[in-house]
Formats: sequence, structure tokens, C-alpha cells
Amino acid sequence: MTHVQSMLATHPRASSVSNMQALTACIEACFECAQVCTSCADACLGEGGHLAHLVRCIRLNLDCADVCSATGRVLSRLTEPTSSVLKSQLEACQAACKACGDECEMHARDMDMKHCAVCMESCRRCEAACQALLSSMAA
Amino acid sequence: MTHVQSMLATHPRASSVSNMQALTACIEACFECAQVCTSCADACLGEGGHLAHLVRCIRLNLDCADVCSATGRVLSRLTEPTSSVLKSQLEACQAACKACGDECEMHARDMDMKHCAVCMESCRRCEAACQALLSSMAA
Amino acid sequence: MTHVQSMLATHPRASSVSNMQALTACIEACFECAQVCTSCADACLGEGGHLAHLVRCIRLNLDCADVCSATGRVLSRLTEPTSSVLKSQLEACQAACKACGDECEMHARDMDMKHCAVCMESCRRCEAACQALLSSMAA
Amino acid sequence: MTHVQSMLATHPRASSVSNMQALTACIEACFECAQVCTSCADACLGEGGHLAHLVRCIRLNLDCADVCSATGRVLSRLTEPTSSVLKSQLEACQAACKACGDECEMHARDMDMKHCAVCMESCRRCEAACQALLSSMAA
Repeated sequence: MTHVQSMLATHPRASSVSNMQALTACIEACFECAQVCTSCADACLGEGGHLAHLVRCIRLNLDCADVCSATGRVLSRLTEPTSSVLKSQLEACQAACKACGDECEMHARDMDMKHCAVCMESCRRCEAACQALLSSMAA
Repeated sequence: MTHVQSMLATHPRASSVSNMQALTACIEACFECAQVCTSCADACLGEGGHLAHLVRCIRLNLDCADVCSATGRVLSRLTEPTSSVLKSQLEACQAACKACGDECEMHARDMDMKHCAVCMESCRRCEAACQALLSSMAA
Repeated sequence: MTHVQSMLATHPRASSVSNMQALTACIEACFECAQVCTSCADACLGEGGHLAHLVRCIRLNLDCADVCSATGRVLSRLTEPTSSVLKSQLEACQAACKACGDECEMHARDMDMKHCAVCMESCRRCEAACQALLSSMAA
Repeated sequence: MTHVQSMLATHPRASSVSNMQALTACIEACFECAQVCTSCADACLGEGGHLAHLVRCIRLNLDCADVCSATGRVLSRLTEPTSSVLKSQLEACQAACKACGDECEMHARDMDMKHCAVCMESCRRCEAACQALLSSMAA
């Protein structure tokens, strides 16, 4: 069991959650993406001669780290949930991951930036996890 | 000048911002609301015999603090903005402030919780500032 | 490879890091502990009749989540590090994890709070990882 | 009254605080410095031809924003405080503000970076507020 799974399994309100698998995956993806984007912003900042081409990437990395951190925290709470808050934050997280993932994909492909390739994968995974959780909430 | 105004006025990309007044107000409202909601969650937690009635309020305070913090950071960045990220995060912030403001309003009115009255005002102000900024972006 | 390892391995300044194993473990522990403490605060909040006994635990969970989040972000940056900042934040993280771990241990033992047992383990692991990283930096 | 003052004045545990003035000033300084440092990192990122000289400044801005955010949140909590956590986080905040303030001072002086001049002032104010609060706690 991951630590996210252990915490959800021991939570007194766990039985109220109908989509535990999608929720677990999304919390894990948000915390992972927050770390990866923080690290990618800093890796871009350390790229010396390429730095001028990575300004937009750094900015989107920082936004995505902040949005994923907030989303991961909101999702980690099961007590007295409010669906308007959860849904709109999940949509914001999807948008941030999409924008950052697209930018990183470009640098991974055109400039062979390997940290951007790792970051793109985390962003894509988090975007998909948000979409899957949103779908399970609509159902 | 507030510190938010001083930073925006000295930013190299300031001339690209067409709605500076709405942006300034929204950044200030987000950081204020993040502090106020963090404090209201803790004030509720210290309410002794009333605590059981404040569980939903604490949860919404914590969500609103996290969402406002992320929104205030994203808005503080002027370099290479992406409107899909800004707009969806502003909508999430509106939703979090609406839910928290409604809950605090109830406790301010029915239980005379004075910290909830202060928090309600910050949430209403931040919700309105997000709405005004969104309107100015659509224009 | 974990995502933290992948990001560190592709970072342009990776070769400047002499204690990569301790750094990796500490970043992973900080992000884990931030999630676990956020979740434990919310689990405590959902404990109904036991809530009054968990006020101090919730407060320490929230502090520990905030301190671990900040520490995990600072540690994720390899570009132009400043050792006074790193060391003092690691010491603060140790203190927050110690206080939260001690409180959770008590509730795990005396009230059989299973989320506190999981949280205690994350806090102990993070405290030890901070200590190990500090030791490797002094060397 | 500022919003920080209003929240502290209505907090059920306010009477337990002996150094309210120092606490209020420090919370305000932490949230201000978190916003200012987030903004300065982004302003530096938008400086075009000067960007290569501002790498260390951006990194310290980001660290200082994260550390001040965490410190401001921890300080905003009055319920069941733990002095080891407060003190060590205040010391970490002092160190982050000192390092960031020194770096910004250099760019304000040598490169006439006006956002760095504003940021230096916020960092100095926050560093002093942390020192004053620490002194009041030792007393």
C-alpha cells in the first residue's frame, strides 16, 4: 500500500467515498506533479545557455506546481466535501497540467530536455487522473 | 502604494497588463483571504464546546486557504501568461470563496462567531475580485 | 526509479550534489509527510465524538504539512543552493515532524487511532531523513 | 484594523498571547514577503537580456516565498502552540529572508533592478519581524 492508500483506508469517512480508486490515483498524481514541476522549473533555471528559451516553461512549471499542490490538499480531505469546490479545482488542475505538459513536450522533442520529458509524463498522468475523477463524480 | 502595487509597477512586463486595477485588487484579496481562512480554521478549532458544529467550516476554511494561496501566486506572475490556466484557477477560487463565505455567514449569524464574520467578508471580497478580474479578461 | 529520482538524474546541476541518496530520500519523505499530515488533520476532524481530544493533533498536523511542503520544495531546487537556508529549514522540518510524530504516537497508542499510526510513521521517517541529510551536509 | 488584527482580536485563544504586537507584525510581514518574492521571481524571469545574472535571485525568491508562506500559516495558528516548532520555523524564515534580501540588494544597487529594491525591503522587514518575535518569545 502507498501512503495515500493507507491514509484513505484508515479515514473515518472512507466508506462515504464511492470512487476510491480514482481518488487515490488523483491525489498521488497531484503530489507527484507538484514535486516534478517544482524540480523542472529549477532544472530549466540551471540550463545556462538555453535559459532564454525556457522562460515560458519555468512560468508554467511554477503555476502547475502551485495548482497541483492545492488540488492534492483539497482532494486529501474527505470530511464534509463540497462538490462545487472539488470540481472547479479539478478543472483548474487539468488546465494547468495541459498547458505545462504541452510546453514541456515541445522542449523534450526540440531541445532534448530530459527533465521536460519526465515532467511532461507527470503532467499528462495528472491531467488524465483529474479527468477520470471528474468523470466518476459526474456519474 | 501597497506592496502588491509596488511590485506590479516595477515589473518589466507591466505594460502588457490592460486590467491592472482588477488584477491588483484580486492578488491582494487572494493573499488576504488565504491568511484569514487559515486563521478562521484555527479559531474554530479553539472554540471548545462549539467545535462539533464547526467541522464543515474548518474543512472549507482549509480548502479556501489552499485555493486562494495558489490563485494569488498564479496571478502574481505576469511573464508569459496562459489564459486557460488563469481563468480556470479564478473560477476555482470563486467557488471556494463562495462555499466558505456561505458557511461562515451562517456561523456569524446563528452562533455569533465573530471570526467567521471577518472571514465571510474576506471570502465575499475575494469572490467578487475574482469575478471582476474574469470579466475584465473576457472583455 | 521514482519520479524524484528521475528528476534529480536529469537535472543539469546533478553532478554538484555529493549526497544524492540522502537528498532523494528527504525530498520523498517531505512530500509524503505533507500529504499524510494533511490527510491526518482531516481524518481527526472526521472523528466525531473523539474530536475534542484531537485538537492539538490537528494543529500539529497542519503545521507539519505546511513545513514539510516548504522543505520539500526548497530541497527540490539544486540550482545555486544556499546552505544557511537549507540547513535552517531542515531543522525546522525536524522539529515539526518530531512534535507531530509524538502527538500522533500518543493517539495511536491510547485511542487506537489508525490514521495517527500511519502519520506517526511518516513523521518519524521524515524527521530521520532530515537528520541524515543535515549530517551529510556537515560532513 | 488590518485583517490580521481583526482575526487575532476575534480568536478564542487571543488572551493567551503575551506578544500580540510582535506576532501581528510578523504574520503580516510573512504574507507580504511571500507575495513580493513570488512576484520578484517572475519579474526577474521577465528581464530578458539580464536573465542570466538573475538565476540565483530567482532561486532565492522562490525559496523565500515558500518559507514565508509556511511561516505565516504556522504563526496564524494560536490554538495549542508548540514553541519548538514556532522557534525553528522563525529561524528558518530569518535565514531565507536574509539570503534573499542580500541577493536583491546587490541587484537593486548594481543593476538598478527596482523590483529587487522593493523585494529587499520586504525581506529586511520580515527578517526583523521574525527576530523581534523570537526575542519576545525568549523573554
